[in-house]
Amino acid sequence: MVTHLPDVRYLSGFTGSSAALAVTRRAVRIFTDGRYKTQAAEEVSAARVEIVSNSPAVSAVQWLAAQPGVDEAGFNPMQTSVADLARWRASLPGRLRRSFLSSLPDSLIEPLRAVKDNEELAVMAEAALLGCTLFDHVLRMVRPGVPEIEIAAELEHQARLLGAEGMSFETIAASGARSALPHGRATSNPLPRRGFLTLDFGVILKGYCSDMTRTVYLGKPKAEERRAYDAVLEAQEAAVAAVGAGVSCGDIDEAARSVLRGHGLAEAFTHSTGHGVGLEIHEPPRVGSGQKTRLQPGMVITIEPGVYLEGRFGIRIEDMVAVTRTGGQVLTPAPKALIEL
Amino acid sequence: MVTHLPDVRYLSGFTGSSAALAVTRRAVRIFTDGRYKTQAAEEVSAARVEIVSNSPAVSAVQWLAAQPGVDEAGFNPMQTSVADLARWRASLPGRLRRSFLSSLPDSLIEPLRAVKDNEELAVMAEAALLGCTLFDHVLRMVRPGVPEIEIAAELEHQARLLGAEGMSFETIAASGARSALPHGRATSNPLPRRGFLTLDFGVILKGYCSDMTRTVYLGKPKAEERRAYDAVLEAQEAAVAAVGAGVSCGDIDEAARSVLRGHGLAEAFTHSTGHGVGLEIHEPPRVGSGQKTRLQPGMVITIEPGVYLEGRFGIRIEDMVAVTRTGGQVLTPAPKALIEL
Repeated sequence: MVTHLPDVRYLSGFTGSSAALAVTRRAVRIFTDGRYKTQAAEEVSAARVEIVSNSPAVSAVQWLAAQPGVDEAGFNPMQTSVADLARWRASLPGRLRRSFLSSLPDSLIEPLRAVKDNEELAVMAEAALLGCTLFDHVLRMVRPGVPEIEIAAELEHQARLLGAEGMSFETIAASGARSALPHGRATSNPLPRRGFLTLDFGVILKGYCSDMTRTVYLGKPKAEERRAYDAVLEAQEAAVAAVGAGVSCGDIDEAARSVLRGHGLAEAFTHSTGHGVGLEIHEPPRVGSGQKTRLQPGMVITIEPGVYLEGRFGIRIEDMVAVTRTGGQVLTPAPKALIEL
Repeated sequence: MVTHLPDVRYLSGFTGSSAALAVTRRAVRIFTDGRYKTQAAEEVSAARVEIVSNSPAVSAVQWLAAQPGVDEAGFNPMQTSVADLARWRASLPGRLRRSFLSSLPDSLIEPLRAVKDNEELAVMAEAALLGCTLFDHVLRMVRPGVPEIEIAAELEHQARLLGAEGMSFETIAASGARSALPHGRATSNPLPRRGFLTLDFGVILKGYCSDMTRTVYLGKPKAEERRAYDAVLEAQEAAVAAVGAGVSCGDIDEAARSVLRGHGLAEAFTHSTGHGVGLEIHEPPRVGSGQKTRLQPGMVITIEPGVYLEGRFGIRIEDMVAVTRTGGQVLTPAPKALIEL
């Protein structure tokens, strides 16, 4: 049973907001509701589509239980709520309630999704480049007094006009002391005469997410601000250089973290170095301290170290990097040397 | 234990993307990670904030288990995955693993959230009016040949400039035969010389979602199209008129459905009449066939019947309605008579 919508999309091509997929050795069936009759017929070719008026997942469970030779069905425990499981069980005949549904020991689909094929990589490269175009576009409007929210709005508007289906998360535009908030929303605050502006944003293109961050400076940075920026950039580039097939995610994190430690900024780097990205903005692998997952060609991860000094300033630099047989390919080639505006 | 983020926000004011709230008779504590240190301190006053480096929910479970006199903790089974529950249990001392965590029989918080207080109603009215402003704004650019996506992009851009934090769902702009897709995304298709255009969209303002739909016509509608539009409008107005404290949601649904049945369009109305809206775009109560929940003053629901004739055209009209002591107050007063452009 597949009920997590990005997994359903990955396996079947169906992009609607309500669906469950049931797979046996002999047949594949997708269940959705009446709103998606036409769309499902257009999008799905590898599975038979069934339009149901009750819950698609319950329909999938019941269909599976009725298949000859099917004694057991697995579900993804990370994407199934305790209440859903109880409801699915209750929909089965009494003799099957205890035994039929079982938690899969690990996700079967996440590892497949983590490694992108060439078609997926092409879409993700296109999404990432669209991000770079947007960054370049909004730089032109960065000047003291412009509200953060107008920068974010213009970026999102252009994204739509250039073909994005939407943003992959709420655009972060945080300036001055607010740049020290790693997840600072764009507010109506005007950009300062002097200070950092962090822009962290991503688009969704053909279902795939992009993610990038650049931090620029309005005015002339103080020596300490420039030193901190250079330290983050050095850490970011060290982690990008460490990317390669067979390298552990923990080692990538350590490549960034050790540089910041050397600059006395270890405590100001309060999050992990990155994450996988694809149909979802956060996917496996996690690129954090001690993570043992080894990178494989086709994985796409972010590398995004930052330093945050509360009440003063913050800096983050983030690229999307595709793992190749020989190293890593940066998908977001926007400039990283400190831009002063 | 409260782990569903809209519930955490409702109860504590915290708006970050990672948190768990633990409540005992004596104390309230909120757990989040290092990214949100400053933000949590700013937003939360009623709970003590604890910054943790492992999972906030696991920290909450362990804190609860260590409180004197706390023998049991309840969690929301609809918002807890099977895998999370297993992880929480595994984090407890052996003697507590079986007994300490239990599924709450029903959500404790959803019924509270379903009834909005005056402050929430004021924000939702503001969000709904912003939606009406946006509809009026984009009407000016509706003409044959303009891509659907440009209408959606302009609407979303204006939303941002007028203070929305984002859209509450992917904007629907579906024209011509595509208007028969109840959830038709905006595409690069040009608007037709003659045909319907359905716009379904919502903004997020101070955390609260708006939701409205209008269907307009480019050119001169055929007699059958006008008849179908008038039938949907009649159904929509009948359901709005039926809103009142003590009325069951099933009766609201039936008010719309029986009108369409009378026009021979029952089968073309393929979804339920509406849903609650608030911090989430879909909240209780469900306004569908047979739903027994009775409306209470302060609930905010959508009323959105539609008809969809595959390959030909579709129509939907949707308002947000606040339930009052004496009836219903429409929060989205944009015109509903058929607009021909």
